[in-house]
Amino acid sequence: MGLKEDSLKLHEENKGKLEIRSKVKIENQHDLSLAYTPGVAYACKEIEADKEKAYKYTSKANMVAVITDGSAVLGLGNIGPYGAIPVMEGKSILLKELAGVDSIPICLKTQDVEEIIKTVKYLEPTLGAINLEDISAPRCVTIERRLIEEMDIPVFHDDQHGTSIIVASAFLNIERFTKRKLKDLTLVMSGTGAAGSQVARMLKKIGVGKIYAYDITGVIDKKKYDSYNFLIKELIDDGIYDTPDDHDNTLASILKGADAFVGVSAPNLVTKEMVKTMNDKPIIFAMANPNPEISYDDAVEAGAYIVGSGRSDYPNQINNVLAFPGLFKGALEVRARKINEEMKLAAAKAISSIILDEELRCDYIVPNAFDKRVVPAVAKAVAEAAIKTGVAKLTK
Amino acid sequence: MGLKEDSLKLHEENKGKLEIRSKVKIENQHDLSLAYTPGVAYACKEIEADKEKAYKYTSKANMVAVITDGSAVLGLGNIGPYGAIPVMEGKSILLKELAGVDSIPICLKTQDVEEIIKTVKYLEPTLGAINLEDISAPRCVTIERRLIEEMDIPVFHDDQHGTSIIVASAFLNIERFTKRKLKDLTLVMSGTGAAGSQVARMLKKIGVGKIYAYDITGVIDKKKYDSYNFLIKELIDDGIYDTPDDHDNTLASILKGADAFVGVSAPNLVTKEMVKTMNDKPIIFAMANPNPEISYDDAVEAGAYIVGSGRSDYPNQINNVLAFPGLFKGALEVRARKINEEMKLAAAKAISSIILDEELRCDYIVPNAFDKRVVPAVAKAVAEAAIKTGVAKLTK
Repeated sequence: MGLKEDSLKLHEENKGKLEIRSKVKIENQHDLSLAYTPGVAYACKEIEADKEKAYKYTSKANMVAVITDGSAVLGLGNIGPYGAIPVMEGKSILLKELAGVDSIPICLKTQDVEEIIKTVKYLEPTLGAINLEDISAPRCVTIERRLIEEMDIPVFHDDQHGTSIIVASAFLNIERFTKRKLKDLTLVMSGTGAAGSQVARMLKKIGVGKIYAYDITGVIDKKKYDSYNFLIKELIDDGIYDTPDDHDNTLASILKGADAFVGVSAPNLVTKEMVKTMNDKPIIFAMANPNPEISYDDAVEAGAYIVGSGRSDYPNQINNVLAFPGLFKGALEVRARKINEEMKLAAAKAISSIILDEELRCDYIVPNAFDKRVVPAVAKAVAEAAIKTGVAKLTK
Repeated sequence: MGLKEDSLKLHEENKGKLEIRSKVKIENQHDLSLAYTPGVAYACKEIEADKEKAYKYTSKANMVAVITDGSAVLGLGNIGPYGAIPVMEGKSILLKELAGVDSIPICLKTQDVEEIIKTVKYLEPTLGAINLEDISAPRCVTIERRLIEEMDIPVFHDDQHGTSIIVASAFLNIERFTKRKLKDLTLVMSGTGAAGSQVARMLKKIGVGKIYAYDITGVIDKKKYDSYNFLIKELIDDGIYDTPDDHDNTLASILKGADAFVGVSAPNLVTKEMVKTMNDKPIIFAMANPNPEISYDDAVEAGAYIVGSGRSDYPNQINNVLAFPGLFKGALEVRARKINEEMKLAAAKAISSIILDEELRCDYIVPNAFDKRVVPAVAKAVAEAAIKTGVAKLTK
């Protein structure tokens, strides 16, 4: 059978991918009196007096909700909250299987930004953290920012930050492997949405010299500032996007002489000819999914030195599975109030450090998604960064 | 150690009572490609085209949310959504342990009726049914009615209906055991809130002759109709509450000569003297929790023939655990659109039928809460009633 039949069969035979389990046995009246009435009233009263005790007496401390409105699911677009369920269940079981974090999928039957914000806030009591998922841009940015500000628990939109953390880990390893300083690199970023913005921010944070950005409107140029949405304006204001001295609004014109290309945009934007005009030993991360900006084979044939993609069947897969399980595990372990930039950077460094100097190769810049060392390393680094930056309520 | 220490220890050592589990293994790239990207997209597309397929490819078909706003938790009152978490987790694991139904606790950080209604509706996509819990009256009645009307999945407020189903099953057995016809009974109902109203409705439905009601305002009397809330007015309009010919607004005055007393009200309202004024072989169900309207021992001493309570340490415990697990299991199995009166009545009959004619005794009118025959019997009866009344989407 093919992927379609195998995957549908797996979903149907198991009746979905997720179940709940009791951590205590309920076989008789005595069990019931401890786990339910009348004994449960004591835990209720402890928490009523101090709501932080919900972390002690309930499953809250290790419980993440994976929340979507179904407005931008995978590459499928706005398929709505019902169509989104299999993805959210998948994310939930990945958190459990890879990091031991409990997680429930929630697919909201509203796509109104204010309603989503209000609803997620109402859900806070039983939850230790929120993973926003597959919400369309720029709504997802507004929703995430408001929730981070207005909630007491960490809120993390994986589509924005997950990719940025792993791309950053890849470039940290590229610096280590090639001995080329990141500050000397000129990088072309294709895609200025929620994910692209964060990738650019993180790359600038780790030291990449110049970032030229490109999207469906052409080359991002501060001369066109007034025509941009708030996200692009912010990145220009913050000095993340640089304006190339010379361009004709085409991707080709800014790739010429560039050291690296990073795409989270659309299929087939980059040709072999364009790669050939780049600087010596070009670096290409083409992550449009499922069809990249340029195929692995074309990139290599055109002379690319290091190539990465979103695909598992080629080297250097940028797979979010490398980041979010360990990130949530670490944040929950120290009861972080938020997931800040330092924690994301710590995650990127932890992922990159999995590969030793002598192991680094052009086709082994990013660890394998199932490398068992990744989650514990990320969790530890994230927890330490949370403590160091003062957002941890526990210091272990 | 005592109950308090034992119960707190159980909650703390297990870090809450509930976890999620994956039903599929995720150990390598192949597993990931089936359960998550890229394979998961096929299930998403199937559901996008027909949202009923969420029942086929996701955990929805067996997933109940236990939802509260923490406004009336156990006998603790309005302790808020954080304090309520241990009870909702308890309810969730009971559904799983007793009936194999998956369930997640949701404690809403709002007590506004309209906001609660809206939020619960937004949560529908991943859920197969809703169990409302520990919401104060009469708000709970409004919320349940609106949600039943406006949602596509069954909504059931256990505090209203759970007790009524089990009390009804007890009276069906009392008729069988004592050979006294229910239509000949005069019953005094103490408590006219959400639970009391439903108990009275169900008792009238199974045939109890006369029901006199009493609450903190005194004896319910149609002469005072205009002073009552909508719930009491409805029960008078529907002929559930009868007005006694002669009373002085005291409980004592309507207990005189009555055959049965059923209380879901407050401690110590009934004295031994009052019981002695009742008809021969009086029946007493005193369910105020944890302290009943009259103690078991006092009731027996005063001559009560059959006595029931909410307590597990005395005979004839009216324990909701007898009803809701099988009720949800049965409703989910045939994908009922709602839980109607016929299904509740079927549950009551199924519970009563567990005890054979020759087994019935004064102290064995209600089955034990952990009798393994109860859940399957209730589930089967509820599923059949759903099919018969046309609310089932599946007919097995």
